Amino acid sequence: MSSSLNIGIVGLGTVGLGVLKVLKENIELISRRAGKSIDVTSVSAKRKNLDRGLSLTPYLWFDNPHELIYSKNVDVVVELVGGGDGVAREICASALSIGKHVVTANKALMAEHGVELAMMAEENHVQLNYEAAVAGAIPIVKVLREGLVGNHINRVYGILNGTCNYILTQMRDSNRQFQEVLAKAQELGYAESDPTLDVAGIDAAHKLSILSSLAFGTRLSFRSVEVEGINDVEFLDIQFAKELGYGIKLLGIASLNGNKISQFVYPCLVSVNSPINHVEESFNAIVVSGSFSDELILEGKGAGAGPTASAVISDLVDIARGTKVPTFGVNVENLIGLDVDSINDRFGGYYVRFTVVDQPGVLAEITSILRDKEVSIETVVQRGRSPGETVSIVMTLHDTYEHLMRSALQDISKLKFVVEKEKVFRVEKFFG
Amino acid sequence: MSSSLNIGIVGLGTVGLGVLKVLKENIELISRRAGKSIDVTSVSAKRKNLDRGLSLTPYLWFDNPHELIYSKNVDVVVELVGGGDGVAREICASALSIGKHVVTANKALMAEHGVELAMMAEENHVQLNYEAAVAGAIPIVKVLREGLVGNHINRVYGILNGTCNYILTQMRDSNRQFQEVLAKAQELGYAESDPTLDVAGIDAAHKLSILSSLAFGTRLSFRSVEVEGINDVEFLDIQFAKELGYGIKLLGIASLNGNKISQFVYPCLVSVNSPINHVEESFNAIVVSGSFSDELILEGKGAGAGPTASAVISDLVDIARGTKVPTFGVNVENLIGLDVDSINDRFGGYYVRFTVVDQPGVLAEITSILRDKEVSIETVVQRGRSPGETVSIVMTLHDTYEHLMRSALQDISKLKFVVEKEKVFRVEKFFG
Repeated sequence: MSSSLNIGIVGLGTVGLGVLKVLKENIELISRRAGKSIDVTSVSAKRKNLDRGLSLTPYLWFDNPHELIYSKNVDVVVELVGGGDGVAREICASALSIGKHVVTANKALMAEHGVELAMMAEENHVQLNYEAAVAGAIPIVKVLREGLVGNHINRVYGILNGTCNYILTQMRDSNRQFQEVLAKAQELGYAESDPTLDVAGIDAAHKLSILSSLAFGTRLSFRSVEVEGINDVEFLDIQFAKELGYGIKLLGIASLNGNKISQFVYPCLVSVNSPINHVEESFNAIVVSGSFSDELILEGKGAGAGPTASAVISDLVDIARGTKVPTFGVNVENLIGLDVDSINDRFGGYYVRFTVVDQPGVLAEITSILRDKEVSIETVVQRGRSPGETVSIVMTLHDTYEHLMRSALQDISKLKFVVEKEKVFRVEKFFG
Repeated sequence: MSSSLNIGIVGLGTVGLGVLKVLKENIELISRRAGKSIDVTSVSAKRKNLDRGLSLTPYLWFDNPHELIYSKNVDVVVELVGGGDGVAREICASALSIGKHVVTANKALMAEHGVELAMMAEENHVQLNYEAAVAGAIPIVKVLREGLVGNHINRVYGILNGTCNYILTQMRDSNRQFQEVLAKAQELGYAESDPTLDVAGIDAAHKLSILSSLAFGTRLSFRSVEVEGINDVEFLDIQFAKELGYGIKLLGIASLNGNKISQFVYPCLVSVNSPINHVEESFNAIVVSGSFSDELILEGKGAGAGPTASAVISDLVDIARGTKVPTFGVNVENLIGLDVDSINDRFGGYYVRFTVVDQPGVLAEITSILRDKEVSIETVVQRGRSPGETVSIVMTLHDTYEHLMRSALQDISKLKFVVEKEKVFRVEKFFG
């Protein structure tokens, strides 16, 4: 063994403690694989005297994370504070600027300031590794920037948020509504007390923008991801979707179309037989289409102390082995800035649920508006009949442009018998 | 860009031509990602004047591959000849011994002489990369020796042979027997004219022994893999399995149990709802259980010019970037030699189909022998009744030791009404 790699960890939440735990339990194995000893020398967190169920006496304690960075006992700074700005950003920027490697699990930071940080890493000839920032234990960053390096990639999509997948799976299996399942998930620790980042799709959007840059070699652009969360998914829609042969999943989808990219996060209908529909509970999955590799599917645990720590360790061992890979697969100067496709130009299938008063002529009026906008209906489901009362009419639409569909829906919403805003979900048909 | 990496390719079959094609089409992209130009300078194959649909004039031609190795225009030798011995082995050994990197897609070579070659790579401080040797485009070698490096791994298993998976899928979907489907697969080019390596499970065993070494850090031991092919799978068994809620897949399964490893390749029953059962046609899939990562599933194309070339290019770019990883994840001196578990000690479920003359007392006699051996029955299926004629009795057995089950079957086979050798397949219940 040549020497040792000295690690300083900033942030001792679930993931930070997970990393300490893995390194403690598997240190011999990991050092043997890394070719040198990997030693956590220093730690920093908000509160020193907190019962973490783990002794911190083996490590130098820093009240101030900025001092940890400058310590001569630290070669690599592991940032596990979280948050797109503030301390996390300052720490990473400072560490890179003085020539220390950085490993982070921070998706918000990478999505919002990844390019700026990548430039600093490049200038200072150090690594900025962030395997844990996307899909936990699934080594998708490695697969994209190393494993599929020979391929042009046209599409990457997947289930990028375990909390949402858990909630949707539970809604389907237990016939319950969103709010009820969310409350249960919070109780069990599967959802945060403030679940907004997850259920509104922002967390998935952070990850998608990173994947998109890695896959297409484009300048990361989180702000241009179009995002819808799962708040609006009702149990009724899950039921109707099932009847029509679909499941509902929150997907992140990035595509390269000529010189435009599209980046969408939304709940959508996928065929009940598609591999992505079989990804259950809190699992994540990512599908990548390469020009030569063909379709590659990766599925695993996207969150939790163990899976996230597993990814952080992989980044550390890469550094110990001396592996040098550009942050986003190519140097920052080679990242291309492409136009972004608006969701209005999306061409695809749709699921629409109208809530109407059941009276003669309803279907005739709706369908004639769709016809006039050249939007073609694939299937119609109307369950039961209750003249004079409120009923649901569900339709799936053949592939069309989103702006045409929206324009038709706007006209339909003005019809007198329509009593509630319609529900719209996109239909994705990736697998054949 | 610092300089260029010069490549010599030995073997211009489907994969060799695939690599030339990918490098030609994507050279700019690949060089940008690699940080230097990747140039094929030299090629060698059996026959120079063969219409390959691709001009070889840009490359130096070598009739003798040994001369290519020594050329000063070659930094990396890509061995795509195939075969566990002969030219392939000589070329790789010579190249490594004179300090040239080697990239190979040769599973037989790695399975049979991997340790010896790894030592040579180590002594000469060069890389021996073989991503294409296991599961084509699925970057499983990278995932095991880099991505999951923080984990103890207890089990790795999967569908490692696309030809067999194709045949089994076709038998199920078209209600045809093995021989008929095999003939069709050969016609379509999905199976070799001599299909033995594939259908007898040897190809899968080569791959499994490599995965096993990577996962457990053990000295590769291909000879100790216990192998059964798919030749004996009848359509009738696929039907019965389906009725019982199972599919039949050829799996390679390597497990670490204390200080023993087991390495099995056999067709077996898997739950119809398990992810592995949804892997269709010629796709491969690998499942790895890590101590912290939890279960990780990778699915993709395991063969073909494009997917295999994609893996070869990834190995080349790793070399261009200067990435150094020990051949089997740790240095050869650190590989451990563990005892091998015999299949007789397997503890698990079984599917057995007896062919008997339908007469009174048959079930009583069979079940009493099983009871005396303490083998417990889970389900019994007997379809139709035809007194005096031949019928199938299908049973699934609760978890038991293989040697107990075999001993019971031996006694049952001696019963007068048993008219054919029984069929036995193992039942695997990985997913809960």
